[in-house]
Amino acid sequence: MPELHPLLAARWSPRAFDPRAELSATDLASLLEAARWAPSAANSQPWRFVVGLRNDERHKRIFTNLAPGNQRWAGAASALLVAAHATTSATGEPLRHAAHDLGQAVAHLSLQATALGLQAHQLGGFDADSLRADLDLPSAYAIGVVVAVGRPGDPDQLPADLRTRELALRPRRPVAELLLA
Amino acid sequence: MPELHPLLAARWSPRAFDPRAELSATDLASLLEAARWAPSAANSQPWRFVVGLRNDERHKRIFTNLAPGNQRWAGAASALLVAAHATTSATGEPLRHAAHDLGQAVAHLSLQATALGLQAHQLGGFDADSLRADLDLPSAYAIGVVVAVGRPGDPDQLPADLRTRELALRPRRPVAELLLA
Repeated sequence: MPELHPLLAARWSPRAFDPRAELSATDLASLLEAARWAPSAANSQPWRFVVGLRNDERHKRIFTNLAPGNQRWAGAASALLVAAHATTSATGEPLRHAAHDLGQAVAHLSLQATALGLQAHQLGGFDADSLRADLDLPSAYAIGVVVAVGRPGDPDQLPADLRTRELALRPRRPVAELLLA
Repeated sequence: MPELHPLLAARWSPRAFDPRAELSATDLASLLEAARWAPSAANSQPWRFVVGLRNDERHKRIFTNLAPGNQRWAGAASALLVAAHATTSATGEPLRHAAHDLGQAVAHLSLQATALGLQAHQLGGFDADSLRADLDLPSAYAIGVVVAVGRPGDPDQLPADLRTRELALRPRRPVAELLLA
């Protein structure tokens, strides 16, 4: 097996989160610090976040806009973060790599979560227009994903169909399929 | 200071690479393994790569399409990788998060490089149409970035203006600027 750093090997995207675990201010600062040090095109740092902590007002506004299938489990996470990116530079130039760079920042944040004994699970299933309106997000920012962050929980607390998915292998394409040309 | 995992803290994007260092097959396999295990929307794994090793034919085709400013330093890296992503699923559905997910895969690859004593520097400056033609890349894949990977070199070997940039601090926005709403 090719070498894989233990931090990368330990990262996964749970559906079972501990509904009693809270995200400390210290851990939140650590997650944002990790995102902050991601690389980006010309160091543009286009990533932006809205942080909802379980039961606070921002969390309510994020949660209510998730797809029903995601609402079945994501509310148990300690936090729901909206990950968005600027679409233009300060001088109005389009940021062509902003979605790519937001992905890098969220990857860093997710790996820092792993380092803290937490895990992150990114969601694409939400009503972006309604979420934007409910959070009053400026149109200069595009919403990428919602990130559920928390302490992994007990899969046996999940409904049966979700528990099956939680315990299933997450296969990956063989490397040969990733190589073009 | 907020906690930052040492692997994340040690990653940076050099311009000075060791022009004698070669990328071993073992290390290349490790870099691709790291990309492979990145998360993606519905586990779509849209990331694809073209690997050029210094002096091989693919490397020549990649290098010749870099912007002149990048050609001044990127040729010293051990490898130039084209990072691309699928634009639609196997059933023809658009992959809305593919650029974001490619960013995650490249972030994982870059962190694995750091773990191996290497570093990665992503480039947006290249002629994408010409690069696609020279590599005969299928139109179903969009090119994201080129990634220079190698062993960090001696900044004193760089031209003076690049050395100044190499040794400059890479500032980041304060976390307060990253928070919306």
